[in-house]
Amino acid sequence: MIKLAVDCMGGDHGPSVTLPACRQFLEHHPDAHLLLVGQEASLRDFRHERVTVVPATEVVSMEDSVETALRRKKDSSMRVAIQQVKDGAAQVAISAGNTGALMAIARYLLKTLDGIDRPAIATQMPNEKGGATTVLDLGANVDCTADHLLQFAVMGSALVSVLQDCEQPKVGLLNIGEEVIKGSEVIKQTGELLREAGARGDLNFYGNVEGNDIFKGVVDIVVCDGFVGNVALKATEGVASMIVGGLKSEFKRNIFTKLAALVAYPVLSALMKRMDHRRYNGAALLGLRGLVFKSHGSADALAFEHALNRAYDAARNNLLDRVRTQVAHAAPLLAAGAASV
Amino acid sequence: MIKLAVDCMGGDHGPSVTLPACRQFLEHHPDAHLLLVGQEASLRDFRHERVTVVPATEVVSMEDSVETALRRKKDSSMRVAIQQVKDGAAQVAISAGNTGALMAIARYLLKTLDGIDRPAIATQMPNEKGGATTVLDLGANVDCTADHLLQFAVMGSALVSVLQDCEQPKVGLLNIGEEVIKGSEVIKQTGELLREAGARGDLNFYGNVEGNDIFKGVVDIVVCDGFVGNVALKATEGVASMIVGGLKSEFKRNIFTKLAALVAYPVLSALMKRMDHRRYNGAALLGLRGLVFKSHGSADALAFEHALNRAYDAARNNLLDRVRTQVAHAAPLLAAGAASV
Repeated sequence: MIKLAVDCMGGDHGPSVTLPACRQFLEHHPDAHLLLVGQEASLRDFRHERVTVVPATEVVSMEDSVETALRRKKDSSMRVAIQQVKDGAAQVAISAGNTGALMAIARYLLKTLDGIDRPAIATQMPNEKGGATTVLDLGANVDCTADHLLQFAVMGSALVSVLQDCEQPKVGLLNIGEEVIKGSEVIKQTGELLREAGARGDLNFYGNVEGNDIFKGVVDIVVCDGFVGNVALKATEGVASMIVGGLKSEFKRNIFTKLAALVAYPVLSALMKRMDHRRYNGAALLGLRGLVFKSHGSADALAFEHALNRAYDAARNNLLDRVRTQVAHAAPLLAAGAASV
Repeated sequence: MIKLAVDCMGGDHGPSVTLPACRQFLEHHPDAHLLLVGQEASLRDFRHERVTVVPATEVVSMEDSVETALRRKKDSSMRVAIQQVKDGAAQVAISAGNTGALMAIARYLLKTLDGIDRPAIATQMPNEKGGATTVLDLGANVDCTADHLLQFAVMGSALVSVLQDCEQPKVGLLNIGEEVIKGSEVIKQTGELLREAGARGDLNFYGNVEGNDIFKGVVDIVVCDGFVGNVALKATEGVASMIVGGLKSEFKRNIFTKLAALVAYPVLSALMKRMDHRRYNGAALLGLRGLVFKSHGSADALAFEHALNRAYDAARNNLLDRVRTQVAHAAPLLAAGAASV
């Protein structure tokens, strides 16, 4: 039985999204048991033989500072959900709440793995090959050293090898050109460490990749610091929504374009489905002594169910052990990296 | 008469693109005179009363290192074009060649303005409001201090006020959140400097913006370091081309979707036209004692003509004086910024 602790109160919509998603998820996963964490009034009507309600009186809001979430709301649904993982009552926790708070609480309660200085957030972006590219870090760490980026590469590699069943996933270093002489000082140092890791067989290092390569699917994993990753993610969301908005407004222009829209609708909706970001919902917080997944705050029930699926797959495939093993295997290199920066 | 020096050999296509663009440009600009710089064999057939051919025996290739371009090819079309600006024979130079080489040669020949440590590359990206957002830097400077970013803000402001005829353009600082406490150390310092500049009236500082705000058109100018700017630009190009590629492949799927494509074609092509990146071709190299514009290397004749138009507008509206004046006006602040970092 795989046990998942779900922060039912988190995200923009709370239980109105998380509970329907949980019900769907339970139907598709007969060996899953859910610990629904949240305020009892919201959860008591949810009955299911494979569900346990775990009460938590407080809720971390999207506006709460890390300080407030961590120090003042000790009985929040987010914190209680992560506590289930720490106590061994659940194998993984999932929340759609405030990212900064989730990262801080997870780090405080679970601690990082040996050899890892900072946890990272890894998410998937769709690519032209019809698959997904895993990108990390996405906002947890803004000032990174080469050593941190090496750790992200090792953890991302473990994640993709477990979740996409791919033995030696290709790792690319996000840069402003393919040549090794390109980039900032930190990126050049990181390139050296990654090449060394590749030579030792700890990683399948492809080399530098550029922003557009994320969507070409040139590599399985793209490593970057949290500042660059966050800007790249949001910039691409921005351009995608501009294009979709442009399509809608062009098709609404007059009666002829509205007719054209009717004819083109099945084609456009097939495309939207292929690129539906909800299918890629569920980011992993890597580098902790326990599994935590983060859903988009604005997720609807379908998107939140995808995050539950990813968390379930991670738990079922022992992601935690895999990350721990790969980090331990790369330990001499990580230590050398730490010494050299 | 506005005189433009054109590197006719630069870019992926050389004279086969630059010369037709020059001919179109001359038709639309009766007060323009072009100095066509390049190998005589390629240019001698181009006759026009407002054209002078300036011979240059060498060509900087897209693969040449900065070193090769600067030290070994002293008679390159790129260098000779910039020399025309230095000598006062032209008000502005335009090249579609190798960005690194162009920046290095321009900086070597023209030198930077007083108060400016590093030139920056400023380009435009389309936004949802139907206008364009100017983003800088885009690859010239990977490791930037807060002081450099402040200089970029002042220069970007001058550029937009001249080219878009907008007195106090809004400047945003690219960050991973709107709150002032967000971001890396350099970004937080930059925020302080920009707020100070705003308070002094040297800039119209809006505050932090996120990646998606570039495309929302929240501000006129987005300031970032060259690493982040380059990744954001290429990532958005990547996602846009994935969406366009997806549309094409969905419409080609079968006979019904092909018919739908015929019906939808006028609508889709109107959208493509609105978002056509060729309309935004022509990046300014700012901070030099002379005007230089950079075209995309892969530009076609229409795109290269747009770069010529932008260079012409910049020269006609005295962009150089405007940048010099704004930099001089902000001099006490720039000096204070330099002292504080």
